[in-house]
Amino acid sequence: MGIIVQKFGGTSVGSPERIIHVANRIIQEVNAGNQVVVVVSAMGKTTDQLVGLAADISSSPSKREMDMLLSTGEQVTIALLSIALLEKGYDAISYTGWQAGIQTESLHSNARITDIDISRVKQSLDEQKIVVVAGFQGVSANGEITTLGRGGSDTTAVALAAALKAEKCDIYTDVTGVFTTDPRYVTSARKLQSISYDEMLELANLGAGVLHPRAVEFAKNYEMPLEVRSSIEYENGTIIEEEVSMEKNLVVRGIAFEDQVTRVTVCGLPNGLQTLSTIFGTLAKHGINVDIIIQSTYAHDKTNISFSVKTDDLRDTIGVLESNKELLRFDEIQHEGGLAKVSIVGSGMVSNPGVAADMFQVLANEEIQVKMVSTSEIKVSTVVEQQNMVKAVEALHNAFNLSSIAQEKTQVRA
Amino acid sequence: MGIIVQKFGGTSVGSPERIIHVANRIIQEVNAGNQVVVVVSAMGKTTDQLVGLAADISSSPSKREMDMLLSTGEQVTIALLSIALLEKGYDAISYTGWQAGIQTESLHSNARITDIDISRVKQSLDEQKIVVVAGFQGVSANGEITTLGRGGSDTTAVALAAALKAEKCDIYTDVTGVFTTDPRYVTSARKLQSISYDEMLELANLGAGVLHPRAVEFAKNYEMPLEVRSSIEYENGTIIEEEVSMEKNLVVRGIAFEDQVTRVTVCGLPNGLQTLSTIFGTLAKHGINVDIIIQSTYAHDKTNISFSVKTDDLRDTIGVLESNKELLRFDEIQHEGGLAKVSIVGSGMVSNPGVAADMFQVLANEEIQVKMVSTSEIKVSTVVEQQNMVKAVEALHNAFNLSSIAQEKTQVRA
Repeated sequence: MGIIVQKFGGTSVGSPERIIHVANRIIQEVNAGNQVVVVVSAMGKTTDQLVGLAADISSSPSKREMDMLLSTGEQVTIALLSIALLEKGYDAISYTGWQAGIQTESLHSNARITDIDISRVKQSLDEQKIVVVAGFQGVSANGEITTLGRGGSDTTAVALAAALKAEKCDIYTDVTGVFTTDPRYVTSARKLQSISYDEMLELANLGAGVLHPRAVEFAKNYEMPLEVRSSIEYENGTIIEEEVSMEKNLVVRGIAFEDQVTRVTVCGLPNGLQTLSTIFGTLAKHGINVDIIIQSTYAHDKTNISFSVKTDDLRDTIGVLESNKELLRFDEIQHEGGLAKVSIVGSGMVSNPGVAADMFQVLANEEIQVKMVSTSEIKVSTVVEQQNMVKAVEALHNAFNLSSIAQEKTQVRA
Repeated sequence: MGIIVQKFGGTSVGSPERIIHVANRIIQEVNAGNQVVVVVSAMGKTTDQLVGLAADISSSPSKREMDMLLSTGEQVTIALLSIALLEKGYDAISYTGWQAGIQTESLHSNARITDIDISRVKQSLDEQKIVVVAGFQGVSANGEITTLGRGGSDTTAVALAAALKAEKCDIYTDVTGVFTTDPRYVTSARKLQSISYDEMLELANLGAGVLHPRAVEFAKNYEMPLEVRSSIEYENGTIIEEEVSMEKNLVVRGIAFEDQVTRVTVCGLPNGLQTLSTIFGTLAKHGINVDIIIQSTYAHDKTNISFSVKTDDLRDTIGVLESNKELLRFDEIQHEGGLAKVSIVGSGMVSNPGVAADMFQVLANEEIQVKMVSTSEIKVSTVVEQQNMVKAVEALHNAFNLSSIAQEKTQVRA
């Protein structure tokens, strides 16, 4: 009899009816002979409502008090879910973060878990209870309520699973798993049976934030297998683990993409040691998230730097750069909007150096111009015109043979 | 510089606007040079909403999980009120029950406070912070969240005041104080400047539950002065303390009354030692609250027992008695509805044995028939026809000279 940790997000527990449905999913696992620990988020829009109440009072509320406020959301869910399980005749007990021994840094709104004292949870499991734990929250060494920031409930689930040496950690969500690409755009997109932690990290923007990168990192560090699966459908999901068994011959595992990309080029910068850190430090200080960065030196003492930003951030980006023109000493700023990023992801790339070239050939065959390129060990990203995005994704999905599970074992070059 | 504990109920903190108003009331006390600890309830209808969610899932939810659920209500308020105080530039910090060291019995939904570890609250006061504490909740010795039951926030406030050796405990509410009688019925009703703990206990049903009896008992035991005052109006309220200074010559301090009373008489009971305990034990077991009890023995072996109940409970009362007829062995049940209870209250009565007679004379002068009588050290209650209730209250209010503060020092007989 093993321990299984199940995590249900805010949508899955958004109403009393959904909470009762979740209770049934839990009971299924209990009846299969498992000890179950459940981690839940706040119900549906609860967090937004609480944030709204605070916003009515202050435009910059204290982070400590926001943690105090927001942590009530999960506490409501754990109580209601335990009530639902008890109503169905299953012994259950709820624990807040501090009761479950989730110890964190003394940092509000974005604390990291430092340790988990599992004694209380373990004792309840030994008493044959289903243990329902509030996600997203913990307690600092000096007894302050803290929260874990974005993706916090996923992190709670994985950390608890690691501390309890659970068999696996199931992340229940509103999609049925991780797909080779977004099925809303590419009809032949296929659900992966398994994927490695690193591939999952690179595919993070596929499937609308199905799993927070921090939780994936945590799982990777503790080698805790995760399964992303649907809280509505009863089919198997996608298993995330170190060694991907079923599909390991597949060099490219998925195609990620996003639109609304703009390329900004800062021309005529001094070619000094501090140039890169000054320019991106300045942007980061203003909260502007930069993605691909390319530097091209065109003279002894001058350099151009191009980078991609979300189109929404363009105006701020230019504003920040212009207002720091004296510091940065550039000649001019150029920009090109209407772009998209298309990436191929797969850990098999490490030992297949030709994959990037294959990708470029596929795009060239489709007469799609590549505006920017960026590569990592397991990912090649290109920036193309937004109007070509879906065409590029479809072509790559076909060329790397992602549509058909039957072809998984054969590596086909484009 | 003294410590003052302020308690604000659910209506006073029912919206962000009201919370901001409460912050101003607190700041007033801080600017007067006091260290302030604030105890708050859940916002307005929050508790009802949470109870409703649980009711959608279970008709008999676990008491432990209900405590887990309901304790979030005050936690939301403490966070928002602290945010409001910080926004106004005053240093504030919120504490849940467990953080504030409110230790209780290991009993859910109606736990008693066993001890308060004030170290954390005291340290924050020493750091010149306004301390905002969640009322109604505590933590048991084994780390379970508990709640204190009805009137719990009042009790938290008084207990904290006692533990902190506060100067006084101010209970802010939606009335301006404790009145000689209900001003909605008697226009000459007057707010009392002060009243003793015992008188307050006897007058508990005046002013629509302005202060929970348990909190008054607690204050009496620790000799903690309370002030009941308005969270809206800026006038002085009513001080509740052991020695009532200003109005101590007044034998009768207030007139309490309630309508919807029914008298039930159980006729022909066996006149045995167990009769009283059997009959009222049976009713209590079925949750029926009995008020005045009168026994009249009319033969060697037979007795009649009359008691008053709320008219709403009449049907249940008769049902319970009839279904236990074999056990109780009575002849028949009679009942009379349309009655009301009118009481005079005042600690001066102890040394004034003629007060009850005075009361009966006042009622007789008004041609009001008395149906039942019950007396205590500081209270005489009569049951009269409901249609005579207000007339009785007005006559008694005049006769015992409660309308005019100028006449307070002179005791006038009816």
